[in-house]
Amino acid sequence: MKPYVIGIDMGGTNTVFGIVDARGIVIASSSIKTAKHANFDDYVDELYTEVTKLIKENDAEGKIHGIGIGAPNANYYTGEIADGVNLPWPTPIPLVQKMQDKFGIPVMTTNDANAAAIGEMTYGAARGLKDFIMITLGTGVGSGIVINGQVVYGHDGFAGELGHVTMKRNNGRLCGCGRTGCLEAYCSATGVARTAREFLELRNEPSLLRNIDIETITSKDVYDAAVNGDKMAKEIFEYTGNMLGEAMADFAAFSSPEAFILFGGLAKSGELLLRPLRESYERNVMKTFKGKARILLSELKEADAAVLGASALGWEAKPLPAVPAPAPAAPEA
Amino acid sequence: MKPYVIGIDMGGTNTVFGIVDARGIVIASSSIKTAKHANFDDYVDELYTEVTKLIKENDAEGKIHGIGIGAPNANYYTGEIADGVNLPWPTPIPLVQKMQDKFGIPVMTTNDANAAAIGEMTYGAARGLKDFIMITLGTGVGSGIVINGQVVYGHDGFAGELGHVTMKRNNGRLCGCGRTGCLEAYCSATGVARTAREFLELRNEPSLLRNIDIETITSKDVYDAAVNGDKMAKEIFEYTGNMLGEAMADFAAFSSPEAFILFGGLAKSGELLLRPLRESYERNVMKTFKGKARILLSELKEADAAVLGASALGWEAKPLPAVPAPAPAAPEA
Repeated sequence: MKPYVIGIDMGGTNTVFGIVDARGIVIASSSIKTAKHANFDDYVDELYTEVTKLIKENDAEGKIHGIGIGAPNANYYTGEIADGVNLPWPTPIPLVQKMQDKFGIPVMTTNDANAAAIGEMTYGAARGLKDFIMITLGTGVGSGIVINGQVVYGHDGFAGELGHVTMKRNNGRLCGCGRTGCLEAYCSATGVARTAREFLELRNEPSLLRNIDIETITSKDVYDAAVNGDKMAKEIFEYTGNMLGEAMADFAAFSSPEAFILFGGLAKSGELLLRPLRESYERNVMKTFKGKARILLSELKEADAAVLGASALGWEAKPLPAVPAPAPAAPEA
Repeated sequence: MKPYVIGIDMGGTNTVFGIVDARGIVIASSSIKTAKHANFDDYVDELYTEVTKLIKENDAEGKIHGIGIGAPNANYYTGEIADGVNLPWPTPIPLVQKMQDKFGIPVMTTNDANAAAIGEMTYGAARGLKDFIMITLGTGVGSGIVINGQVVYGHDGFAGELGHVTMKRNNGRLCGCGRTGCLEAYCSATGVARTAREFLELRNEPSLLRNIDIETITSKDVYDAAVNGDKMAKEIFEYTGNMLGEAMADFAAFSSPEAFILFGGLAKSGELLLRPLRESYERNVMKTFKGKARILLSELKEADAAVLGASALGWEAKPLPAVPAPAPAAPEA
């Protein structure tokens, strides 16, 4: 097997990529702007140029086993990026086909949360675990579910949308998916900011958060206020952790994981989020599951995590079939 | 491989068992009362006597590959019946060990809903499906989840408790599991009866159900009234199907199954339940999953279903290891 893989983390703003060795060391990385090109082929061309440059600089020509790409709404089975993503190109996008055609190297893709779960299983907090659920708490709430050592893709490749289970069946917040009351509308970074706005509007008590323009408030502002002892900000984390714990208690009833692994910006809030989350989880989970699942933070270095996760998928890539010789012309009728 | 397996369906009242061939034909069956014996060993003794008799009568001596048992709270990994079941013996019960010791035939067990899922996958509506969720609508709500052709047992063997996801987070009904608002408290046969009592108490309109003692009303009474055109009874099915559809929409976000298979007494309500269920599912499910999953009824003959499901597990049983020769006595110190 060739000694390196390329991991590509394709985000709405930046596409970060790196060369990764078998021990999970990112030996070199770089990035391009995702949305610079109006045409997807032009994006692939620039990516090819930059990745090739990185490969040459690191003396890795001919040594790349495969390319793994974590991309929003990317489908493991079809290799396409499906509808409903914040990217400048018409969907579905035949990501794997276009990339393989350009690079001549086998390419695998899955969505970013599944890539993170694979990375965590290969190099991070989930090493040795066969049943766990990765929950990514970023702009949205994503998930990668691993059962019996395998990522759950579902019959169509779209399983693991745990950010979109319904947590409020009445009067729930409108979610980006068009429905209401989804977990993501409450427990993402944007959900925390929405909770802050709601608390500020509905309550009268003083708070450090009142010094910030209510329309521009972010989860980071809430975190900073909470760290500075602000009561309302701490309650916002209580509210968020409580709901996430309720949701995770339901997830336990599904697949009884040995661990939940939290990843993404909001997970870095530490005990502000984790204490109410753990308490809520144990309070809400069925007796059968109490005290069993560990709730862990991702162990991947932040800058490398997405690239590492995607790269781990690169090892799964099977060599491309040799280009078949042209078939002999059919005898004319 | 030997040509037959024994399937045993261990219920709180009756234990039904049968000899099943490789095509899934129940060639003979019988039953004993589960709760007759205060001692579990005596129960196993009677079961051994009766099963052995059935084997002899059907000329199947020496032809049994394995025994599969579907039992409440039975754990695939440990072979034990765990706490919290309505059986007259102290738990955990070392079911597989006791049965193997008595029968000298390899034994496998899992809970009744997983057994039903395996049966459906082997002989029923799920033949050829790799990703489906079996939902059993009986006294309780059970589930057997199949992902990529494998039953989901979770890290501890207790996965698939979908009757205990929380559907009402405020003011939910008390569930048998000790928590409140569980799916099972609403969408089981007893849940339907509870809904009937609630509707009768909270509303004034006339209903055929008012002719029945409110304390003894059953889901069958509600079904009969609905079939006779009773408006309130039909609304009870609407309410039930609607909630089940909401729950299944969340399950789709987890594992994106190609089908849901409904099993058990309440599933026989047919379109009274299925129409509101399908409508609710499609209304509530994420756009990605709309129009994809089929909602099917079990295809196993009712009388055979549980035995068949359990028997299918019997084929998984591995031959027992030969009894090892006694180890030589350790030299005295």
